[in-house]
Amino acid sequence: MIKYPNGMTYNGKKKKKQHLTSSELSISSANRGMELENLINQSNKYYRQKHICLVKKRPTSITVLKVDYSKGAKITNAFFEEKSTTDYNGLYKSRYIDFEAKSTKNRTSFPLKNITFHQIEHLKEVILQQGIAFFIIQFVIHNKIFLLDAKEVIEFYETSKRKSIPYDYFLTNGIEIELGYNPNLKYIDAINKKYF
Amino acid sequence: MIKYPNGMTYNGKKKKKQHLTSSELSISSANRGMELENLINQSNKYYRQKHICLVKKRPTSITVLKVDYSKGAKITNAFFEEKSTTDYNGLYKSRYIDFEAKSTKNRTSFPLKNITFHQIEHLKEVILQQGIAFFIIQFVIHNKIFLLDAKEVIEFYETSKRKSIPYDYFLTNGIEIELGYNPNLKYIDAINKKYF
Repeated sequence: MIKYPNGMTYNGKKKKKQHLTSSELSISSANRGMELENLINQSNKYYRQKHICLVKKRPTSITVLKVDYSKGAKITNAFFEEKSTTDYNGLYKSRYIDFEAKSTKNRTSFPLKNITFHQIEHLKEVILQQGIAFFIIQFVIHNKIFLLDAKEVIEFYETSKRKSIPYDYFLTNGIEIELGYNPNLKYIDAINKKYF
Repeated sequence: MIKYPNGMTYNGKKKKKQHLTSSELSISSANRGMELENLINQSNKYYRQKHICLVKKRPTSITVLKVDYSKGAKITNAFFEEKSTTDYNGLYKSRYIDFEAKSTKNRTSFPLKNITFHQIEHLKEVILQQGIAFFIIQFVIHNKIFLLDAKEVIEFYETSKRKSIPYDYFLTNGIEIELGYNPNLKYIDAINKKYF
């Protein structure tokens, strides 16, 4: 399945919005239910302005087949490529950091089916080169967001038969990331706790 | 001016290929005249396979306006965004590295006009966060490629009236990058000399 930048997904059969339903929104207030990507992007902007860290979302890879130059370089034929790396990478205290952010509406576990083989291979390489690699996982139902080290996710990915990580595992081994106004998601605090 | 992934440029008036002319190619043999981007991409692939470093080219940012889902998610209206960061970033020996690659056909200096204000701002931020930031500059006429620290390029960018860096400056202060078969461009050797 390919995920598009506007939050739409395409699995070859139908398209589906990944926004929350109204019943899910009813449990939310303030940042609750706000899309994880928006929380992270706002935080990245804040952290950059305050010179705390420099993290950017990787643009979605698009193969351009046709450009109409008569209309000021309008792309008229192109397609999305499948993701081969993570969504975010950057720099914090001279170290390279790399992470993928995922949201789940599951109550009891985080399913690993949306993580691709190439992303796992990429993260293994980051770990080998001594980068800081992790996942930011949002449990919408519990209104909790965790940082979990990529090594642990890879371990589950490669050994778990259910291809999921239990919610309880996050409570015990994850670092809960605090929500706030500025930044929306204090993920640097979680990085400090885990890696520095 | 916006640079497109296929090597075309668009300055609002005309489009122009950035490939070398046949007379420029006549001075070349082996890697000479091979496009700098190809040399770097081949080297990144080699370095990754050998677990030496993990550097990727950032995809070009494209704003997608219209997708035709009836044709398997074909993008039918989109446009290129202006570059706000560098072309490459990644990880080497736990450190974050970030660089921009440029080629010039000038004999006596490297013109800074193709480097954007946003790229300079981005590199300043990388330096502030203690990342490794540099430029890879190819002088096609001299058949030489140099690594030059971003601090020095920024210094020229902000103070030079001619908005260029003399070729002699590269000979004295740059690190010449050796060409080869595998990798095509031994830029890690140059990083080792300069930063490790």
